[in-house]
Amino acid sequence: MAASGIVTLLTDFGTADAYAGVLKAIILERFPGARLVDLTHAVAAQSVLAAAFLLETAWRYFAAGTVHLVVVDPGVGTSRRRLAMAAQGHFFVGPDNACLSAALPDAVRGARSAGEAYQPRTVRLPEGARAVSIEAQALLRLPVSATFEGRDAFAPAAAHLAGGGALEDLGPVVQDVEAFAAFQAPASAGRIDGRVLHVDRYGNLITDILPAALPANPVFRAGGRDIRGLKHTYGAATGLAAIVGSSGTVEIALVMGSAAAVLGLGPGDRVSVTAAPGR
Amino acid sequence: MAASGIVTLLTDFGTADAYAGVLKAIILERFPGARLVDLTHAVAAQSVLAAAFLLETAWRYFAAGTVHLVVVDPGVGTSRRRLAMAAQGHFFVGPDNACLSAALPDAVRGARSAGEAYQPRTVRLPEGARAVSIEAQALLRLPVSATFEGRDAFAPAAAHLAGGGALEDLGPVVQDVEAFAAFQAPASAGRIDGRVLHVDRYGNLITDILPAALPANPVFRAGGRDIRGLKHTYGAATGLAAIVGSSGTVEIALVMGSAAAVLGLGPGDRVSVTAAPGR
Amino acid sequence: MAASGIVTLLTDFGTADAYAGVLKAIILERFPGARLVDLTHAVAAQSVLAAAFLLETAWRYFAAGTVHLVVVDPGVGTSRRRLAMAAQGHFFVGPDNACLSAALPDAVRGARSAGEAYQPRTVRLPEGARAVSIEAQALLRLPVSATFEGRDAFAPAAAHLAGGGALEDLGPVVQDVEAFAAFQAPASAGRIDGRVLHVDRYGNLITDILPAALPANPVFRAGGRDIRGLKHTYGAATGLAAIVGSSGTVEIALVMGSAAAVLGLGPGDRVSVTAAPGR
Repeated sequence: MAASGIVTLLTDFGTADAYAGVLKAIILERFPGARLVDLTHAVAAQSVLAAAFLLETAWRYFAAGTVHLVVVDPGVGTSRRRLAMAAQGHFFVGPDNACLSAALPDAVRGARSAGEAYQPRTVRLPEGARAVSIEAQALLRLPVSATFEGRDAFAPAAAHLAGGGALEDLGPVVQDVEAFAAFQAPASAGRIDGRVLHVDRYGNLITDILPAALPANPVFRAGGRDIRGLKHTYGAATGLAAIVGSSGTVEIALVMGSAAAVLGLGPGDRVSVTAAPGR
Repeated sequence: MAASGIVTLLTDFGTADAYAGVLKAIILERFPGARLVDLTHAVAAQSVLAAAFLLETAWRYFAAGTVHLVVVDPGVGTSRRRLAMAAQGHFFVGPDNACLSAALPDAVRGARSAGEAYQPRTVRLPEGARAVSIEAQALLRLPVSATFEGRDAFAPAAAHLAGGGALEDLGPVVQDVEAFAAFQAPASAGRIDGRVLHVDRYGNLITDILPAALPANPVFRAGGRDIRGLKHTYGAATGLAAIVGSSGTVEIALVMGSAAAVLGLGPGDRVSVTAAPGR
Repeated sequence: MAASGIVTLLTDFGTADAYAGVLKAIILERFPGARLVDLTHAVAAQSVLAAAFLLETAWRYFAAGTVHLVVVDPGVGTSRRRLAMAAQGHFFVGPDNACLSAALPDAVRGARSAGEAYQPRTVRLPEGARAVSIEAQALLRLPVSATFEGRDAFAPAAAHLAGGGALEDLGPVVQDVEAFAAFQAPASAGRIDGRVLHVDRYGNLITDILPAALPANPVFRAGGRDIRGLKHTYGAATGLAAIVGSSGTVEIALVMGSAAAVLGLGPGDRVSVTAAPGR
């Protein structure tokens, strides 16, 4: 697979510090021709689930051979692996904590069961996908910091791939990686077990609930509150409302406020749906 | 007009999601040599007026032949046109909702009357300016999403122009476009009828009131509150104050707080000025 | 020193306006090959100290010959000099107000005394460092605005250097520049006199206190509150806590809240440390 020279960045570093700039420094030092694109640095702190979701919304629009670098890494400094993957015509670099789930087709990731949280599960790489554990000393910045592997291991690996280096140069091949189940709420016994995937800048709760799966008169239960019916636009909503957002799934929104703050919910939390009693 | 290869981006997408990144993906896929510059993605949600103002503060500093892409589009998915313009030596791409007003000289846009809000008005393109309706199927991403025309129509059009493509390739020529009146508060019967154009990151209300037009002892009325006198620096201000901001117009500021929040005002809202009674 | 073509940007402009975009416009107009990297635009308003600290965290990771442009400039429009420096293999451009302190080794900057605030001090350039006052009319945008020298003087200077222009073209050589003392809290009579250097996006107060300097049972005094003991991870903390942050120094944090807001502290404010009475 030929590299496009583009590297996307997705982190929970925020933009009030220079940490994202440091990742770019390392990439540009090692591959001066890199074209860098920020996806976002505003992932909820250490929310691997939100990172995986945001990557899924964006990666496929980039040119084939693009490197997607994700640094959302609650396990930094522990023994979790550092992963580089070639899959679906793109490269993916990040911790092996399921943040790179989007690299794998839904069928490989499997379905989530009702009542089951989004937890990383170990899956076997599908045909055509390749992965390595980033370990090659020659390509790392040594000694690798226990608190900033983004700088010392992931950014160098991304630069290597973006510059046309071989995946296998980065370390030993691995066959199994961590991934979340496909982002689609399961239903059981008339109840949809939805989960929050991401909180956007307005505090809207983006869920994994597909509108097509909803009953005729849905009641959404979120943070102890009942929200009746599905609105189709923000204009039609007042107070807490369930609407179909730009991600194509149900969002819980609070007009002129933050649903996340009012309900106390964030990535991973539950939003369930039942049908209102018929009349 | 030769393209500079630069594309600026101005949206209300925020940076907590990857939507701005997706625009960049499409531009880079179609014109890999593009140099991308964010103006801001923090336009107040769907405030076409704020977008038009922010574009006006920035576009002229870029090299001739730069493409300015604006996606602030409350009418996305409706029949409003998608516009690409060549004017004043630059290219402008966005919805035909007056967000591209800065492309047109003040004389063409005309003056606002006292008591009149900033509403889009239909103006005839001046000599030397050209515009088309973005419709050419060969250049769009099909099918065009009803909720994300930025990705499927505007970004492809921007890439086409930045890569040296002809404006007329994008669709049929149009002669009339939407624009706001020139950003300058009118006066009538001793009263200046100012309006908020933008809220900055501190909650300061940037208005269209020129200091030169003020009476000797101005009283600013904003959100039901009177603010007396004009301060020349933030250092001299306490509480709510009117100062001349870096945009060169009057700003209503609250020292150590957000004037926008306290006064409940945003883009389009009124800030009027009268003269204090003489002594 | 050969230029890398990279220009980093560090300002207090925020990203809600297009001011940072205007800096980039000027740089790209004058040196189209520039590769631009945002360090951050979220420096606390006019906090020269925070800017100097953030520059220190990032500059050394960039390729040799990179230009670091800092525009945090409470003295804009006054007689303070505009500085361009070549030091430690990099270029630095900004106001001569100590925001470029990181360009100079700690030994040159000297130590801060207990009880002394971080104030700019005049230091002689060390061997191998060169500096000029940016004055050459041919390279400025004229007339230079009294409120936006970033656009009219600093960005043109950065473009000149990034494009391979000589430092001495920019204006007369200077031998003395402003700098802060090295960022390390002094101790005296059993008390460490720490200072806040930066407030991060969570409201954590990043200080200049090194963990190695702490007594066995430290008590941190910040904003009138006592905080006992040093936590080693956020997971172990509740309420206000002192932890070792990713910058390697002590941070005062409030779990699920903003320590800066609760304590009313910001860059330059004091966080002192004493030893708890022995038992």
